[in-house]
Amino acid sequence: MKTNPGRFFEDYRLGQVIEHAVPRTVSGGERALYHALYPARHALCSSDQFAQSCGLSASPIDDLAAFHVVFGKTVPDISLNAVANLGYAEGRFLTPVFPGDTLRSTSEVIGLKENSNGKTGVVYVRSRGINQRDEVVMEYVRWVMVRKRDLSAAAPETVVPDLKPALTVDDLHIPEGLDFTNYDFTLAGEPHRWGDYAISETIDHVDGVTIEEAEHMMATRLWQNTAKVHFDLTFRPEGRLIYGGHVISLARALSFNGLANAQMIAGINAGAHANPCFAGDTVKAWSEVLDKAQTDAPGVGAIRLRLVATKGGAPFALKGEDGRYLPHVLLDLDYWALIPM
Amino acid sequence: MKTNPGRFFEDYRLGQVIEHAVPRTVSGGERALYHALYPARHALCSSDQFAQSCGLSASPIDDLAAFHVVFGKTVPDISLNAVANLGYAEGRFLTPVFPGDTLRSTSEVIGLKENSNGKTGVVYVRSRGINQRDEVVMEYVRWVMVRKRDLSAAAPETVVPDLKPALTVDDLHIPEGLDFTNYDFTLAGEPHRWGDYAISETIDHVDGVTIEEAEHMMATRLWQNTAKVHFDLTFRPEGRLIYGGHVISLARALSFNGLANAQMIAGINAGAHANPCFAGDTVKAWSEVLDKAQTDAPGVGAIRLRLVATKGGAPFALKGEDGRYLPHVLLDLDYWALIPM
Amino acid sequence: MKTNPGRFFEDYRLGQVIEHAVPRTVSGGERALYHALYPARHALCSSDQFAQSCGLSASPIDDLAAFHVVFGKTVPDISLNAVANLGYAEGRFLTPVFPGDTLRSTSEVIGLKENSNGKTGVVYVRSRGINQRDEVVMEYVRWVMVRKRDLSAAAPETVVPDLKPALTVDDLHIPEGLDFTNYDFTLAGEPHRWGDYAISETIDHVDGVTIEEAEHMMATRLWQNTAKVHFDLTFRPEGRLIYGGHVISLARALSFNGLANAQMIAGINAGAHANPCFAGDTVKAWSEVLDKAQTDAPGVGAIRLRLVATKGGAPFALKGEDGRYLPHVLLDLDYWALIPM
Repeated sequence: MKTNPGRFFEDYRLGQVIEHAVPRTVSGGERALYHALYPARHALCSSDQFAQSCGLSASPIDDLAAFHVVFGKTVPDISLNAVANLGYAEGRFLTPVFPGDTLRSTSEVIGLKENSNGKTGVVYVRSRGINQRDEVVMEYVRWVMVRKRDLSAAAPETVVPDLKPALTVDDLHIPEGLDFTNYDFTLAGEPHRWGDYAISETIDHVDGVTIEEAEHMMATRLWQNTAKVHFDLTFRPEGRLIYGGHVISLARALSFNGLANAQMIAGINAGAHANPCFAGDTVKAWSEVLDKAQTDAPGVGAIRLRLVATKGGAPFALKGEDGRYLPHVLLDLDYWALIPM
Repeated sequence: MKTNPGRFFEDYRLGQVIEHAVPRTVSGGERALYHALYPARHALCSSDQFAQSCGLSASPIDDLAAFHVVFGKTVPDISLNAVANLGYAEGRFLTPVFPGDTLRSTSEVIGLKENSNGKTGVVYVRSRGINQRDEVVMEYVRWVMVRKRDLSAAAPETVVPDLKPALTVDDLHIPEGLDFTNYDFTLAGEPHRWGDYAISETIDHVDGVTIEEAEHMMATRLWQNTAKVHFDLTFRPEGRLIYGGHVISLARALSFNGLANAQMIAGINAGAHANPCFAGDTVKAWSEVLDKAQTDAPGVGAIRLRLVATKGGAPFALKGEDGRYLPHVLLDLDYWALIPM
Repeated sequence: MKTNPGRFFEDYRLGQVIEHAVPRTVSGGERALYHALYPARHALCSSDQFAQSCGLSASPIDDLAAFHVVFGKTVPDISLNAVANLGYAEGRFLTPVFPGDTLRSTSEVIGLKENSNGKTGVVYVRSRGINQRDEVVMEYVRWVMVRKRDLSAAAPETVVPDLKPALTVDDLHIPEGLDFTNYDFTLAGEPHRWGDYAISETIDHVDGVTIEEAEHMMATRLWQNTAKVHFDLTFRPEGRLIYGGHVISLARALSFNGLANAQMIAGINAGAHANPCFAGDTVKAWSEVLDKAQTDAPGVGAIRLRLVATKGGAPFALKGEDGRYLPHVLLDLDYWALIPM
C-alpha cells in the first residue's frame, strides 16, 4: 500500500526518534493568515518596529503559529490512529520564528504504556521544532492514546516518563536580546504590567467568536495537519471536529483583552482539550493568574496563566462536583508568558 | 477591570489626541488575502512591474487595505460604544503603503455635540495613519454617535467642525513620481481614459458577490477591528453585522468592471452605510461620475465618483420619495480616484 | 458600454493573439493561501531548503497555483460567454514560478469551428504564462464552446488544430538545475520512488475534504477569475458552481498520500471536468499510473498519471457502460509529474 496507514501502538519503540516530513518555510503569508483566522493583536507579533524596540531583529510569527507548524508535522506519525490526545507537558519556546525561517519536526518516544484492555496504549513523545540553522525553536511532551493494529502483539515494558507538573521560571528560555525596559504600553494597547497582576486573579476576556467551518479547515490545512476528522464529513457525519490547536489560538488571541502585554509564550505546563468544538460554537475565554516570577532579562517578567476556552456558560466555572470539566469548557491550558515588569 | 470597556461620550475632550494601539507591519500576505477576499483587479495594486511603469517603486497594497488597517486601530478607542457611524469627510490618501511598511494610527478629537436626549453625543475625530518613517499615509474625519456612561455628566461645549462638503482637486495629494504617460491600457484591462467619462454618467458594474460569514470575519480580523457585533452571534443573535468597510472594499473591487483605470483612491469626500449587510446578501455596485479635474502629475487625471453598493433592486436607484436611502442600498461613497488622461 | 461583455464566437479570428489584462506579482502570501485552501504538502513547494537540496534556488509556488494565476487572466477574454470548457491538451510547465515573480498571460487562437446549430462555436486557444523576464513559464491548449452574439454572422473557415493525444517525455521541460540524486525521502514523506510504481497501478488517496463556499470563492478570487457563476447566487440561484481548477488543486493535494514524491507537474495531456462540484460535496481522489519514462536530468524520472476526483462512489470507477463519466466523477486529469528515480 502506498498511502500512509499511520503508526499503531506496537510500531513505537522506547528511544525511537521519528523525523517528521514536509519542512516548511514561513513568510508574511502565514502571519497574515494567522491574523485573519484569529483576533490576534499582540504588538510584538504585529509590528517589526515594536519588536525591534523590544530587542528582537524583527516581528516573529505568533508563538502558537510556530507551534501549529511544528505540531502539524507530527500528526501523520503520531496521532493518525490516536483515539485521544491526553496531555501536554514541558513545552518550551526556545527561539522565535521569523518570516523566512524553515521548520521541521522530530519526535522522540519517551514512554509507552499498554492499556489494560489490550486494545490501546499510551505513547509519550517529546517533539521538537528545528529551524534551518538546526536550532531547536521549541520542544514539548505530548501523550496520546493509540490503537493497536494487532491485538495479540506483546505489550512493551511500561515506561511512564517523569514529567514536571509545571516548569519553573528557571526552565524558561528568554529570547536572546529581549528587553522590555523601553516597552511602549500605549502602542501595546494596555497599561497593565507584571506588578498589576496578582496571583489567583481572574480575568474575563469578554469577547467571543462564532466559528465557521471554512475558518478551522483553512487553519488546520495551513499547519499541514492531515487528521481526517477535521475535514471529511463523510468520515465523521456527526460533524467535523475542530483541531484543538484552533481553540488554543482563538483563546490566546481573545486573551489580548486584559492580557495585551503577555506578549510571548515561554512555556506550556499542561493542557487539556476538555470537550470537542464544532462550527457554530461561540468561543470565549477567561484567564487565571497561577504564578509570577522575575527573569534575568531586562524588564522582562514571567506570568503563569490558566487559559480557559468555553462555548457557553459563565466565566470562571471549570469543573463540576464530580471533578470533571463542565460540558461547555473546551480548553484548560497552563502556560508561562513574558510580560513587562 | 483589566479589559477595555471603550470610551464613552464624556471621556472625549476637544483637542485630545489618542494614540491607537497595535502597530502593523504589512506584507505580501495582506495583499494576497485582500485579493482572496475581494475581487480586486486594479493592475497598479497587482503587479510590481505595472506599478513601476507608472513611476512607483513597487506595487502598493490596495488603498482600502491600508485604510482598513488604519481604521481598525481606531475601533477600540473610538467606536466600541458607538451606536452609529454617522459619516466620513476630508479623507486624503497621502503616501502609498508598500509591503514592509508598518502602520499606526492616531485620532484627534475635533468636535463634540451632546444630543438633546442627554443619552448620547456625537464625537468628531480626524484620524491619521502613520508609517515607520513618521509620514502620514492618510487622514480622514469620521463622526460617530457614542453612548454616555453617566447620564448626569455635564454636556461639553458644542463644537461642530467646519468640514468641506467635498475635496477639490487641489486638496488631493498625488503620490510622488506617479506618471501615467506610458500607461498600458491593455494590461490594465480597459481602454477608457479620463476623457471617456462624462460628468453624470452612470455605470452598472454588473458583477455580484454573495457573502459568506467566514469571509467578512477573516477580513475584519485581519484589520484587527475588534467590534463584537461582527464576530459574536451570542452577542447579536439576530445575525453578525458585516463591517461597513467590507462592503466598501467589495464595491470598489466590483467597480473594476467599467472603471479598471481608476487605479488609485486619492480622496474620500463622504460616505454613508445606508443599511446593514449580512452573510447571504449578494452585493452589486454601480457608480456615477460626479466631477472631473486635471492634476499636475504627468498624464494623471482625477475623477470624482459616487460608488453605491446594493443588495438587490435595480441599479441607479438610491433614495425614495421621502429622501431616505432605499432599503437595498448598502453604501453611498463619494471619492476621488486617479485615472490616466 | 464601459463594462466587459466578453467576446462572442464571431469575435475570434484564427491567428489572433490576445494579451490578457492584470499582471500579478506573487508572494509568500499566495503560497500560504494555497496551502490554507488545499491540503498541499509536496515538500519542494513547502521548503526553501528542500527545494535547494533539489537544485532549485528556492521553493517555487505550487505548479497549479501558477496555472490558476495564468488561467484566471484568460477568463475575461476567453470564457466569459463560454457554455462549456471542453478540454485541455499540450500543457507544459516550462519555468518554475517563485515569490517575487510577476505573471501575465496571452492566448493565441489556433482553431475555430462553428457548431451545426449555428448558435455556438468551438474556440481553440494556446495560452501562455509569461514572467517579468519575458520567459514563458507555462503553455497549454484549451478549447471552449462559446455563444454567438449574432446568429446570422457568417461561420469562419473550420480549423481544428492537430493536438497530441499526450505529450511524450521528450516534450517535457525539466526545470534548470533540477537534481534528485540527493533527494531526502524522509523529509518528503514517503519512500516510494519511480521504480516502485508500475504502469496501470491504481492508488486510492483515502483522504477527503468537504468543501465550503467561502473556500472556493476565496481561491477563485485570488486567481482573479471573474466568472459570475462562481460568486453570484442571484445569477445562478441553483448554486454557485465551483471553479474546475479548485477541484484540480484539491485532487492534486489529496494525491500527496501515495504520491508524495511526484513533486512537480511537468505536463498536462488532457483534462475533463466530468460533473459540476458544489459546496457541501466531499472531494476524494484516486490515481492510475498511465506511463513512465526516464529523463536526462540527474535522478529525475517522469510518471504519467490519471488523477480522478470524485464526490462519492467507490474509487477506480470512472465511466458507465454507456461510456459516459459516472455522476460522482468530478475530474479526469492526465498529467506528467517528475519523481525521483
